Amino acid sequence: GRTDPEAEAPRLCRAEALAIDKELLEEFRFGQQQLIEIWGHACAMAVTKVFPRRSLPRKQPTLLVVCGCEQNGAVGLACARHLRIFEYEPTIFYPKRSSNPLFRDFTTQCEKMDIPFLSYLPAEVSKLISDAYNLVIDALLGVEATPGELPEPFGTILATLKQIRIPLVSLDVPSGWDVETGTSDGISPDVLVSLAAPKQCATRFVGKHHLLAGRFLPYDMQKKFELNFPEYPGTDDVVSL
Amino acid sequence: GRTDPEAEAPRLCRAEALAIDKELLEEFRFGQQQLIEIWGHACAMAVTKVFPRRSLPRKQPTLLVVCGCEQNGAVGLACARHLRIFEYEPTIFYPKRSSNPLFRDFTTQCEKMDIPFLSYLPAEVSKLISDAYNLVIDALLGVEATPGELPEPFGTILATLKQIRIPLVSLDVPSGWDVETGTSDGISPDVLVSLAAPKQCATRFVGKHHLLAGRFLPYDMQKKFELNFPEYPGTDDVVSL
Repeated sequence: GRTDPEAEAPRLCRAEALAIDKELLEEFRFGQQQLIEIWGHACAMAVTKVFPRRSLPRKQPTLLVVCGCEQNGAVGLACARHLRIFEYEPTIFYPKRSSNPLFRDFTTQCEKMDIPFLSYLPAEVSKLISDAYNLVIDALLGVEATPGELPEPFGTILATLKQIRIPLVSLDVPSGWDVETGTSDGISPDVLVSLAAPKQCATRFVGKHHLLAGRFLPYDMQKKFELNFPEYPGTDDVVSL
Repeated sequence: GRTDPEAEAPRLCRAEALAIDKELLEEFRFGQQQLIEIWGHACAMAVTKVFPRRSLPRKQPTLLVVCGCEQNGAVGLACARHLRIFEYEPTIFYPKRSSNPLFRDFTTQCEKMDIPFLSYLPAEVSKLISDAYNLVIDALLGVEATPGELPEPFGTILATLKQIRIPLVSLDVPSGWDVETGTSDGISPDVLVSLAAPKQCATRFVGKHHLLAGRFLPYDMQKKFELNFPEYPGTDDVVSL
């Protein structure tokens, strides 16, 4: 439970975020596959909380998950699979596939679950996206992205995501934002799901729903990094901040 | 959803249960670590459903998780960790540790979460166990156990578990039972949590609560093995059968 209910959850800088990942893997002996599975499940649960299936404006519970080629994208793949299990209809756009066998396995799991993959996302499709889907999940870039750098095709994709008129859910770090300073000319997600703990850029988040997916974190780590965590309800692995 | 609400979930023989595991790993590219994490979480959720923390007879929400050295034991370790996260107070008895690095990592995760490990379980401690804990989770032996064979110290442990007077929760296969024929002189669990799908021995289960932890199974596999699954409520990964 939270030690001081009045205190805000702290915001991590990039180095702290990377240090938590490293410590989880090396000291606590979590596997990367295990962490991606935990986060993917939590992000899917976050979507069910903010956008219950029956509340969606379209007849079909469609959504588009846009995945990058690093860990954030793999969390997106796992999230898409869990949303399929929760009876949503995800479609994945995964323009630059990773050759990492671990990430490839998360891709195969989605393919074998018959989740469709878009082969391309033309530059001027923001209207098509807004018509076809209820929401878009941005799993393009996370803390592992090199600050300042935005390689293609991610620049073009972000330009498209800026124009959509349906809700946008960003996983951990809104893509294109600097982990620490945030940004004012990038995308502006309606929902942010922070993984492990919120990053500094979350202070620039002005969307409606900020959720935290960090329940699995060992207590010692919460103490060490002074993560002043709220109570998670029931067996939920996400909580609203 | 279930295709025919009147039909019973089928019961798998040992070969089918092993074939499902193999297909999940080889064709669907699930990782063993990922499956153990999914099942451990589901088993912990099953415990919260049958034994809500506030309903427990003892002041502290203590429970004992008895783990074997194969996959069933690793699911027990993951289950203990998630129960700690759900604010129960698990203690682990893991008499014969596996040298498999994957299982060792699940052990380390528990140790680093400050979950206590019992170093021994004397033969005549059934009364001590019944006094100290609210329930015992049996994660000793699963489908991977060789039929008929019951190596020490498992025989002695089972003899003790037969005498406890607190609820016993078995994961997948009650330890010591034949996967197909069940048994009449073994332990008699109050709760059975079937992993992926119920095994044939589940027809001999006479306890109060039978739960299924198989929501993650791909639809194609459910069809192929004619697994006639019930609806899972909300985002739960277990359902009562």
